[in-house]
Amino acid sequence: MVRPAQLEHQSLPGLRGRAAAIVENSYFVRFITVLIVVNALTLGLETNHGLMAGYGTWFHLFDQFVVAVFLFEITLKLYAYRLPFFKVGWNVFDFIIVAITLLPHSGGLAILRSLRILRLLRLITLVPQMRNVIGALFHAIPGMASIIGILLVIVYVFSVLGTHFFGQGTSQQLDFYFGDVGHAMYTMFQMMTLDDWTDISNETMRHYPWAWTFFIPFIIITSFAVLNLFIGIIVDALNIVKGEDLKAEEEDVLAEIRILSAKIDTLQSEIRTLKGDRD
Amino acid sequence: MVRPAQLEHQSLPGLRGRAAAIVENSYFVRFITVLIVVNALTLGLETNHGLMAGYGTWFHLFDQFVVAVFLFEITLKLYAYRLPFFKVGWNVFDFIIVAITLLPHSGGLAILRSLRILRLLRLITLVPQMRNVIGALFHAIPGMASIIGILLVIVYVFSVLGTHFFGQGTSQQLDFYFGDVGHAMYTMFQMMTLDDWTDISNETMRHYPWAWTFFIPFIIITSFAVLNLFIGIIVDALNIVKGEDLKAEEEDVLAEIRILSAKIDTLQSEIRTLKGDRD
Amino acid sequence: MVRPAQLEHQSLPGLRGRAAAIVENSYFVRFITVLIVVNALTLGLETNHGLMAGYGTWFHLFDQFVVAVFLFEITLKLYAYRLPFFKVGWNVFDFIIVAITLLPHSGGLAILRSLRILRLLRLITLVPQMRNVIGALFHAIPGMASIIGILLVIVYVFSVLGTHFFGQGTSQQLDFYFGDVGHAMYTMFQMMTLDDWTDISNETMRHYPWAWTFFIPFIIITSFAVLNLFIGIIVDALNIVKGEDLKAEEEDVLAEIRILSAKIDTLQSEIRTLKGDRD
Amino acid sequence: MVRPAQLEHQSLPGLRGRAAAIVENSYFVRFITVLIVVNALTLGLETNHGLMAGYGTWFHLFDQFVVAVFLFEITLKLYAYRLPFFKVGWNVFDFIIVAITLLPHSGGLAILRSLRILRLLRLITLVPQMRNVIGALFHAIPGMASIIGILLVIVYVFSVLGTHFFGQGTSQQLDFYFGDVGHAMYTMFQMMTLDDWTDISNETMRHYPWAWTFFIPFIIITSFAVLNLFIGIIVDALNIVKGEDLKAEEEDVLAEIRILSAKIDTLQSEIRTLKGDRD
Repeated sequence: MVRPAQLEHQSLPGLRGRAAAIVENSYFVRFITVLIVVNALTLGLETNHGLMAGYGTWFHLFDQFVVAVFLFEITLKLYAYRLPFFKVGWNVFDFIIVAITLLPHSGGLAILRSLRILRLLRLITLVPQMRNVIGALFHAIPGMASIIGILLVIVYVFSVLGTHFFGQGTSQQLDFYFGDVGHAMYTMFQMMTLDDWTDISNETMRHYPWAWTFFIPFIIITSFAVLNLFIGIIVDALNIVKGEDLKAEEEDVLAEIRILSAKIDTLQSEIRTLKGDRD
Repeated sequence: MVRPAQLEHQSLPGLRGRAAAIVENSYFVRFITVLIVVNALTLGLETNHGLMAGYGTWFHLFDQFVVAVFLFEITLKLYAYRLPFFKVGWNVFDFIIVAITLLPHSGGLAILRSLRILRLLRLITLVPQMRNVIGALFHAIPGMASIIGILLVIVYVFSVLGTHFFGQGTSQQLDFYFGDVGHAMYTMFQMMTLDDWTDISNETMRHYPWAWTFFIPFIIITSFAVLNLFIGIIVDALNIVKGEDLKAEEEDVLAEIRILSAKIDTLQSEIRTLKGDRD
Repeated sequence: MVRPAQLEHQSLPGLRGRAAAIVENSYFVRFITVLIVVNALTLGLETNHGLMAGYGTWFHLFDQFVVAVFLFEITLKLYAYRLPFFKVGWNVFDFIIVAITLLPHSGGLAILRSLRILRLLRLITLVPQMRNVIGALFHAIPGMASIIGILLVIVYVFSVLGTHFFGQGTSQQLDFYFGDVGHAMYTMFQMMTLDDWTDISNETMRHYPWAWTFFIPFIIITSFAVLNLFIGIIVDALNIVKGEDLKAEEEDVLAEIRILSAKIDTLQSEIRTLKGDRD
Repeated sequence: MVRPAQLEHQSLPGLRGRAAAIVENSYFVRFITVLIVVNALTLGLETNHGLMAGYGTWFHLFDQFVVAVFLFEITLKLYAYRLPFFKVGWNVFDFIIVAITLLPHSGGLAILRSLRILRLLRLITLVPQMRNVIGALFHAIPGMASIIGILLVIVYVFSVLGTHFFGQGTSQQLDFYFGDVGHAMYTMFQMMTLDDWTDISNETMRHYPWAWTFFIPFIIITSFAVLNLFIGIIVDALNIVKGEDLKAEEEDVLAEIRILSAKIDTLQSEIRTLKGDRD
């Protein structure tokens, strides 16, 4: 399902083939992998102000080194594979992450500095098993689209209803929960995760004692919908694998039956010659 | 399972056929779908008091337009399909939602204004995949009736017991939790969702130190019952699909075996003629 | 799996057979079922002090009537079936519930009054589908014994460790959580349900900053164990059903193959006579 | 999968065989099992200060006895099996637990006293069913490595981002949540378990109103990942069992077909002799 961009260097001419050979070399890939993990750790350590005060320069230098290596890697890849490089989704993902890293972030844009940790996501691109898991996740999404759509419809309908019923300035707390449809959706999402849902319903019931007729059906309906989302994925996953097993078994049995059939054909032709001989 | 009311216009005579052709036209259906979604968004935006103050007239006009379109659509459908229209559950559902919308709500009945958001539920009627999901959910309910019944019995028994044990005016908080069977059922439902259950049990144990012997078995029993509800649905869903696969495989194999059988029959009749010839 | 005590009256002699015929009569069973449900509702309503003040005598009279009917039913059953009545687990269950009900509870033993609600559990005995669900639950327990045992071992080990580490009088709150092994087990059970576990760990970490190394592994281990408990039951449930389906399919195929085999045997004997004729 | 160390005494010479015969004797194993459970209970009771004051000496004596028995058992085992004893993982586990127990803990090292409860873990080593469950758990880990890796990557990335976004000294509470990457990981783990996640997000949103765009995707992504972890294990567990069943069925059918095939071969050779006779 996920086509790797690697191992194409044999088919590339001259210098491009050599550039590809470098970036596809297993030691180079391992080096990049280790670099990503170590960089993630240093980016974590940088959040410690004490460490930053003492070793800030070293962190900065190491970061410059990582940027240089990534820049070298992506340049080689672009040179080797040219535009087809962008046909593989994972490459585009990698490219964007490296590009974010290269934007000037020493200036005022603190947010770009923070985004450097996204480099760790490249680990998923580099480890084939992780790439497969993500591929499978994306593969499962279309099958869940209907039930996610229904969940959204339910949450939205209850949110708008909640805003009308409870969010008309009765109390400050209720306005935080149901003041407008945005707050109400946040509140209903919280209810759906069952986190402190009784705080919300108890507060609401202090003003509207019948409010439990609103909250308890919502919880039951959404739990049931989430459950079905869940079950849908399990059934899907099992069927793919099971179907393959069944087909393999069927083919084994059918192959044996066909051998039998061929034997009977031989038998028949022999009997016919027997008959023919006699006539 | 879910029979669509659409695509019957060929079989309807004259004007009725033309009315049906309009409401079954895929562009018309798409237009209605978009209208429902846009209307849901405007109904959400209406909850923002600032927006309502500035653009209230526009929201009102758009709403009038949506009502007019829905009215036009349902009139055409009723004219085209007449009473059989109501034989399809989804049509009844649609009709009720549109009917609620048409009730005069500009007067004092603020609740009817709020219910306009229920129109979004028509999206489920219009999107076949969503309709299938809901159909499957309803299909699963009979199989879960027993375990839901048992859950209700357990919650009710524990609620009545809780009222007798803890709800006799010991403290205001305990009376909120277990004052009568209604409060107790709400409390036990909260326990079942595991939300802040220790708030309840700690408060109760302050007065009745042995109360954990009441709460912990309840949590274990209901968790186990919910788990089994869950498993029942998974097993059910898997069996339907698997049964079909197995049957298909079986039929393939049996078909091949029957071909073999026919060949052997031919063989036998040939041997018999061989014998007959000789006699 | 669950053998009903009903429908044995044909095999019983004389008066005993007629007594059995009454208690096995479907109208009588339905009457008892309705009575149980109505009684459960009245027992729920009795928790409302206002209603009790106004209609207490009526509730009391109805309760006397229910006791009389149950007494009549159990007497008939004991007379009809005699000792074998107690061989069926559900009958013993029923008998105990009715017996509890008959104990004198108008006196000081308020707890016995409360236990009248247990009569609702007879509903499970009377509805075959519910009885099957409970039967299946009990059937699943032996398969889960090992993992439940492991869960208990883990909770107990962590509870005793928690008592030693955190329950030495450091603070009143910590002594509530970990004062002795009983409190610690309650706390660890709370952690296992993930309910407000950060309240516990944050409080503990205020005194023992390394306490997260105790709590986070506990949460991961127990979640994983509960997950496996869960999966074990699903796999078990699926295998029983699937095994049956596979066996049925296998038997169908094997039956066809055996018919083939018989045909070939006939063929062979005919060829032998052919040979024998000629010799 | 889990090879027991027991039942090897027949193959061991002289005194070593007799030592092995003792430790493999089923009564001895039961005695050790009971001792472990009783000891776990006494270690639990020891946490009760009242009981310790009254019966401390008895607890101490019993503990000495348990240590003596364990020491005797492990000595016999080491004498009987010698170094190969350590080839079985469970034996190493047992040995370490007994070794911890034997370290001098009457002195200042209170922690070693606490660790005596780890002896209860020997129960898992002794009960074969529990050993199998643990074996299966460890067996399942490699298949989950990718998804656990992805979960770690996600939690780490969000933790570092959270530290940069919210942990810059805005408020004391926010610094507790996101002060450095360690605190942030603890906070994100809490979010992942959905425990009081709205306390965190509400506090953060008081200072950063857009923070829900950080928290809600995190919850959805991690819930989805955990769900897939879960599903992966179910699918895996089912496939192993199902594969075996299918293979068994296939072999049954193929065996029958092969018998058929042999019969047809006999038939053919008889026809050939028929033909040969005539020629």
